[in-house]
Amino acid sequence: MTDIKRQTEKALVLIVERKYKELRDLLSDMPAVDIAQLMGDLPKDIIPLVYRLLPKELAAETFVEMDTDMQETLIQAFSDLELKEVLQQLFLDDTVDIIEEMPANVVKKILKNSDPSMRRDINEVLHYPKDSTGSVMTNEYVDLRAGMSVQDAFKRIRRVAVDRETIYTLYVTDDDRKLLGVVTAKTLMLAEPDDLISEIMETNVIYSLTTDPKEDAAEKITKYGLLAIPIVDTEERLVGIVTVDDAIDVIKETNEDEFAKMAAVSPSDDSYFRTSVPKHVKNRVVWLLVLMLSGIITGAMLNHFEEAIAAVPALVGFIPMLMDTTGNSGNQASTLVIRGMAMGEIKLKDFFKVWFKEIRVAACIGVLLGIVNCVRVLIQYNSDPDRLKFAIATSCTLLLAVCLAKSFGVILPMLAKKLKLDPAIVASPMLTTVCDICTILIFFTFATRLFKL
Amino acid sequence: MTDIKRQTEKALVLIVERKYKELRDLLSDMPAVDIAQLMGDLPKDIIPLVYRLLPKELAAETFVEMDTDMQETLIQAFSDLELKEVLQQLFLDDTVDIIEEMPANVVKKILKNSDPSMRRDINEVLHYPKDSTGSVMTNEYVDLRAGMSVQDAFKRIRRVAVDRETIYTLYVTDDDRKLLGVVTAKTLMLAEPDDLISEIMETNVIYSLTTDPKEDAAEKITKYGLLAIPIVDTEERLVGIVTVDDAIDVIKETNEDEFAKMAAVSPSDDSYFRTSVPKHVKNRVVWLLVLMLSGIITGAMLNHFEEAIAAVPALVGFIPMLMDTTGNSGNQASTLVIRGMAMGEIKLKDFFKVWFKEIRVAACIGVLLGIVNCVRVLIQYNSDPDRLKFAIATSCTLLLAVCLAKSFGVILPMLAKKLKLDPAIVASPMLTTVCDICTILIFFTFATRLFKL
Repeated sequence: MTDIKRQTEKALVLIVERKYKELRDLLSDMPAVDIAQLMGDLPKDIIPLVYRLLPKELAAETFVEMDTDMQETLIQAFSDLELKEVLQQLFLDDTVDIIEEMPANVVKKILKNSDPSMRRDINEVLHYPKDSTGSVMTNEYVDLRAGMSVQDAFKRIRRVAVDRETIYTLYVTDDDRKLLGVVTAKTLMLAEPDDLISEIMETNVIYSLTTDPKEDAAEKITKYGLLAIPIVDTEERLVGIVTVDDAIDVIKETNEDEFAKMAAVSPSDDSYFRTSVPKHVKNRVVWLLVLMLSGIITGAMLNHFEEAIAAVPALVGFIPMLMDTTGNSGNQASTLVIRGMAMGEIKLKDFFKVWFKEIRVAACIGVLLGIVNCVRVLIQYNSDPDRLKFAIATSCTLLLAVCLAKSFGVILPMLAKKLKLDPAIVASPMLTTVCDICTILIFFTFATRLFKL
Repeated sequence: MTDIKRQTEKALVLIVERKYKELRDLLSDMPAVDIAQLMGDLPKDIIPLVYRLLPKELAAETFVEMDTDMQETLIQAFSDLELKEVLQQLFLDDTVDIIEEMPANVVKKILKNSDPSMRRDINEVLHYPKDSTGSVMTNEYVDLRAGMSVQDAFKRIRRVAVDRETIYTLYVTDDDRKLLGVVTAKTLMLAEPDDLISEIMETNVIYSLTTDPKEDAAEKITKYGLLAIPIVDTEERLVGIVTVDDAIDVIKETNEDEFAKMAAVSPSDDSYFRTSVPKHVKNRVVWLLVLMLSGIITGAMLNHFEEAIAAVPALVGFIPMLMDTTGNSGNQASTLVIRGMAMGEIKLKDFFKVWFKEIRVAACIGVLLGIVNCVRVLIQYNSDPDRLKFAIATSCTLLLAVCLAKSFGVILPMLAKKLKLDPAIVASPMLTTVCDICTILIFFTFATRLFKL
């Protein structure tokens, strides 16, 4: 049984002690991703040295797992022969991933050291639109012919398996590369040697088009529990596959984008550290500007109540509390609705069902918050003759504003979706402004009546 | 090639026309998950009728894909014999999932119709702590012995494959069920028939313990690109496996929890609609209360500047804009830091690196927002003699407060992590309060100086 942590520590000791033979033996037994992680902690000048200790295949696997900076360092350090060897071991989708991240001079070096057929494949994948299934697929699948026997199929698998990304789903094509069906390795293993592929293949194939967004392939893999999905062009010709591990990457990336959008940040392809300061500024400043300028409306609202404020300045003290509470109430509802829609649980036709639920939740929360607030105001202002008026104005505002905030939290994202806009981007900044305005309007309406201003 | 949408529409027509023979043929060719989805749109009383048309194996697969309400309806409608047949087809982890969601009387009916060995297995899995790998694993794996030849292994696989969840990773155990190694179906297919399993197995096994959190298994599956991970007990005995499709479910669930926490909602196991109103209230009211009460501090702050407000009430009009803008600035930073830490990109030792980056981003954003704000204030208040003072006070506040907000957006989550608290839960509500306080303090400090109050 493995203990990765202990192995890593041992490897670091061996590097310091320059015991390279033992280090090589140790590394040969470690998973590629752990070696890559270990190398991330080494000083830059030792990395090529350690890398060259790895057996060829493991070296390529480790290379794929490294972060872009380390890959660049290594490619710069490689001789042409070394680079050629690594490239030969890589799967097409990994090579394309690397190329997309590298500066022009490194890309040139990579392409120079690829053989012509590899260069053609790379260019083909690079040619698909960004974020399409075509751009993340690989062409290292095993294809079979309908007329083959199971025995023939096994022979073919054994011959080509070594450099294919998966051999557990096999694709049956005709002379024109048209996809006729799929057969799993399990079906093959359970079939008789003389059975024909055409007899045992599944013809009801789940697939994605090269031009579909990559999320489509990932969703289908998840929904149907697949290990890989075939990617076909508009003429139903098989051009590649996307495997389940790539689907997981797509899911994670999509999630990161959703998180970014929820925080009013434009999603970025790069990781936090690799995004430059100007890029970070660009990703964030737009929504802040929108929010800031929409604050003009709220400000105008408040200026409208200038006389009331001048007469009872203590009212202002309640504004942040009221704004934060209703803003957060609305945000809770909108997040749940946005996620529910993204997950497919909440559909547009559920509008009234959702709204009815939220309004009941809001009423309960509003009453609870109102009571707690009432008590704390009465205690905190117990020497103020107006304390009851403060308590009533704020508690009533909480109840009403929370109900409105939760309602807008349902309405805005669903309206955005209905208008085919991105709910996460459109709904959040608008919600803040709408909630602020409602809160102030309600609060000062109550206050002016109660204080007879 | 399949067109699921068209198939579904056709099926609905056949149901209305009561053409059950054609419907059966159509359904037999459809993926289970699509049948389950289709049935979700049918009136409740037709569901059992349509379900009974399905071939046995497909029926069980479809059953697993249904939502809990529909499963309950069906179990209630099943005869004992029908239920027994479905249960026999289910994998252990799916059965356990269903049992965990059902009310007591349905669980009783399920257990009554399970055979004794199944009941024992169910109880064993139910016995593991909630959210541990043990609670999501299945025991339907294929185990091999080290002394078997490749040929023997294939024979064993062919014999048991039908009711195993995966046959692509095979587990080598000794007489005491101790896990000795794993071997993939690919390795088996590429090996010679007479090779011994002990010669070709991988002994450096990645595994999880039954008591590890289920995220541990999911992370390892993702990190190492596995199709399944073995789960062992404290004595290194193999007790089950978790497959990649379950790992994807865990990843999605974890993400939903993170989203909920970001919106100040306690994560819920149930879906939106299945969560009752009181449960929704409970999940949301706690953080709203915390936020509301922390608003007391901000309020006290403002009351402190009561005289200034009474003298220049127009100052109040800027408060919402300033609070929203800095709050959002801080939120952007904290979200990126929290996600970066969750993804493993940002580590505690990176504190200064992150902070330095954020402070530069904040300075740029602060200057940009300051300039835009200055222009709009000068235009909007162009008849006001104090317009320059307003512009300077607000723009300087923006610059300073954004820098502080972004700094707190780094400090609070990383401090939470350092204290082994959940950054997403602790950092967000605190950040709002801290940003509000800073903003008000800075704004009124500038204002009182400029207006000589």
